Amino acid sequence: MNKLFDDLEQLKKKLLEMRSLVEAAIERSVRAVIHKDRAAAAEVLETESRINSIELEIDAMAIDLLALQQTMATSLRFIIAVLKINSDLERMGDISVNIAHAARSLMDAPSIQPTIDIPLMAGLVRSMVRKSLDAFVARDTALARSVLASDNDVDSLRTACFHRLVSFMEQDPRNVPQALHLLSVTRSLERLADHSTNIAEDVLYYVKGIDVRHNSGPDASWHE
Amino acid sequence: MNKLFDDLEQLKKKLLEMRSLVEAAIERSVRAVIHKDRAAAAEVLETESRINSIELEIDAMAIDLLALQQTMATSLRFIIAVLKINSDLERMGDISVNIAHAARSLMDAPSIQPTIDIPLMAGLVRSMVRKSLDAFVARDTALARSVLASDNDVDSLRTACFHRLVSFMEQDPRNVPQALHLLSVTRSLERLADHSTNIAEDVLYYVKGIDVRHNSGPDASWHE
Repeated sequence: MNKLFDDLEQLKKKLLEMRSLVEAAIERSVRAVIHKDRAAAAEVLETESRINSIELEIDAMAIDLLALQQTMATSLRFIIAVLKINSDLERMGDISVNIAHAARSLMDAPSIQPTIDIPLMAGLVRSMVRKSLDAFVARDTALARSVLASDNDVDSLRTACFHRLVSFMEQDPRNVPQALHLLSVTRSLERLADHSTNIAEDVLYYVKGIDVRHNSGPDASWHE
Repeated sequence: MNKLFDDLEQLKKKLLEMRSLVEAAIERSVRAVIHKDRAAAAEVLETESRINSIELEIDAMAIDLLALQQTMATSLRFIIAVLKINSDLERMGDISVNIAHAARSLMDAPSIQPTIDIPLMAGLVRSMVRKSLDAFVARDTALARSVLASDNDVDSLRTACFHRLVSFMEQDPRNVPQALHLLSVTRSLERLADHSTNIAEDVLYYVKGIDVRHNSGPDASWHE
C-alpha cells in the first residue's frame, strides 16, 4: 500500500503543477486585458501546449492507478476527482487563451468606462478558482461551499457588464467591435467561475461522498 | 465476468438514453431559434432536470463498476470513456438550454438575413454530435476522425456569421440586442461542436488506447 500512497502523492503533485500553470495563465490573460500588456498575452499563448501535455500526463497517471485493482473506496474517489478537476483545469487554460486573444484585439482601442467592472469580476473569479483548488488540497468542505455561493455574484456582475456594453454599442456603432471583445471577456470570466463551481462540487463529492451537483438553493442536501 | 458484462451493457444503455435526451434537446433548441417555435423552447427547459439526474446515475454506475476491482484494461477504458462522454453530454444539455433562452428572446424579433447561416451551422453541428456518438457505439475510428475534421468547418461558419452580425449592428444600433442573441446562438453551436470533438477523441482513446488530444493536423500520431 506504500507504493499506492506514493503514487497518489505524485498524482496530487502533478495536479498542483497543472493548477499553478492555469492560475498563472488566468492572471496573465486578465492583466493583458486590463493593462493592455502585450507580453502577458504572449505568455498565455506560450503556456497553452504545456498545460495540454500535463493534462495528458495526469490522465495517464490516474488511469494507471485505476488499473492497479487495489484501490480502496477513498482512493478511488480521490482519483475520480483528480480526473474531473484535471479536465476542468484544461478547459480553464483554453478559456484564458480566449481572453488573451481578446486582449490582443483590444490592445489599440481606447480604454472605455465599461471595463471598470472587468477588474472587479476578474478578482472575484480568480478568488473562486483559488478557493476551489485550496478546498481540494485541504479537503475543506466549508471553503468549497463558499465557492458555490459566489457563483451568483459573478452572474450578476456579468449581467451588469452586458447591459452597459449594449448601451455603449447603441450609443455609437463604431463601438461595436470593441464592445464585442469586452463581452467575450466577461463571458469567459463567467465560464471560469462555472468551472470553479464544478471543481468545488467535485471536492464535496470526494470529501463527503455526496453528490451535490444539480441541487439548487441553500436547502439542498449537501448540508452537514 | 457475466455479471460485469451485464453491468457494462446497462451502463451503455443508460448513456444511450442520455444521448437521446441531449440530441432531442439540441434539435428542439435549434428549431426554437429557426422557426420561432415557443413549444420547442419550453420542452428543452423541461428536459434539463431529467438530463441532470441521468448524468448522476451514470456517474454512480461507472464509479461502482470501477470499485469492483475486477475490471480488465478494456473495460476500464470503456468506463473512463463513459465518464468523460457523460460529462460532455451534460454540458451539451446546458448549452441547448442557453440556445432555448436565446430563442425565447428572439421570438418577437423580425427574422433577419444573417440567420440564414444558422440552419447551415446547426445542421453541421447536429451531424457532428450524432457521428461522435455513433462512433462510440460502433467503435468506429474512421467515423470519429471525420468528426475531428468537421470542427474547422464549424469555426469558419461561425466567423462568417460573426462578421455579418457585426455589420448588421453597425448599420443600425437598434439591431444590437437581436444580433447579440444570434451571436450567442452561433457561439453555443460552436461549443456543441467542441464537445463532439472531445467525444470523438475519447472514442479514439477507448478503441485504440491512444490519446489523440492536443495533436494538430492530419499528420498527428493517431494515424492507423
